[in-house]
Amino acid sequence: MAMSSDHPYIPRDLHLPGYIPISLSQSDILVPYLGSSLLVVAIVGLVSGRFPKISKTDRWLMCWWAFTGLTHIILEGYFAFTPDFYMKTPYLAELWKEYGKGDSRYVGRDAAIVTVEGITAAIEGPACLLAVYAIASRKPYSCTLQLAISLGQLYGCLVYFITAFLLGDNFSIGPLYYWAYYVFANSIWILIPSLILVRSWKKISAALTAEKSKTQ
Amino acid sequence: MAMSSDHPYIPRDLHLPGYIPISLSQSDILVPYLGSSLLVVAIVGLVSGRFPKISKTDRWLMCWWAFTGLTHIILEGYFAFTPDFYMKTPYLAELWKEYGKGDSRYVGRDAAIVTVEGITAAIEGPACLLAVYAIASRKPYSCTLQLAISLGQLYGCLVYFITAFLLGDNFSIGPLYYWAYYVFANSIWILIPSLILVRSWKKISAALTAEKSKTQ
Repeated sequence: MAMSSDHPYIPRDLHLPGYIPISLSQSDILVPYLGSSLLVVAIVGLVSGRFPKISKTDRWLMCWWAFTGLTHIILEGYFAFTPDFYMKTPYLAELWKEYGKGDSRYVGRDAAIVTVEGITAAIEGPACLLAVYAIASRKPYSCTLQLAISLGQLYGCLVYFITAFLLGDNFSIGPLYYWAYYVFANSIWILIPSLILVRSWKKISAALTAEKSKTQ
Repeated sequence: MAMSSDHPYIPRDLHLPGYIPISLSQSDILVPYLGSSLLVVAIVGLVSGRFPKISKTDRWLMCWWAFTGLTHIILEGYFAFTPDFYMKTPYLAELWKEYGKGDSRYVGRDAAIVTVEGITAAIEGPACLLAVYAIASRKPYSCTLQLAISLGQLYGCLVYFITAFLLGDNFSIGPLYYWAYYVFANSIWILIPSLILVRSWKKISAALTAEKSKTQ
């Protein structure tokens, strides 16, 4: 059994009995994720073009919801429901060992992290796939659903960053991992949900304004 | 200076240097909160009756948003930004010492609790008061705002309960406090936001459906 000091994570005295060191390289981990994400975007982008009356923006939104929904369900779902991933070797376990270099709370099983990831995987993930369907079939609730999920993603990011700040913001094994994994990767889930939030809010307000002026 | 074992909270070895025991009784704490909440509801209920075209449901909603907004800003704001409340004696400090009997994580300054309470106090609290104004002046964004705040309150409750569950759900000093403070008091912020969420969702969907059928 590996000694707890054999791992690279913070705090250095974190006890990880049975820890199996990461065997894949950074590119072994990132390339399949980015590659399959691009594949999903390409497939959804192509297929969505066959639906009638779907605007270009809506096609991009379908790509986003498919990508983020599958990320939530598969990647984050694996993390949330695999407490002992650090002693496993499948690709998804290796991915979280790698991400843990940017935020060791994932390896330390911080309760707030597990909670946010669990909510994201179990509630927001399926809701994202529903959003793909809702946009494709032009459901009236599509805007409201996108607003709701984006708010949830933003709330999750707030909890993620504020808890780290309160605990001293010292969970990364180096500045490269801090900026690339902890800051940059997560900032995507602040930027895009913020844009969708503003867009959905405006569309809903326009519909409610139209209805109000009609009834007056 | 009080010994850390002088306090009633869980875990029993929680270190609280300078802890000043609670001096107010349970009714000394609950009666002013419930009394001033009823006063707020009565004032908003009466004043809202003077606005034209406000439905009875909307008047009740204004009462709710005023009550919950002031609770978020004053009570939860005090907690979020007063890390050493357990060594203070004002009414709000006593209130949190009392609530801590139902969930000692408040006294132990759990990062997830402080984060959720901080978001609730700083973002949702002011948004609730904006909702009172938005309903009174019949703004088109009123429904969207109520949906957004309710989703935030529900997300906060999820984080609150799931983190406690993951940490062993043992932060109450007795079953009465567990059920009255931890379960019952918080269930209000699950029940009412859920009802408002469903109502707002339906109203927004109706407006979007009307707009869609108009443009087709």
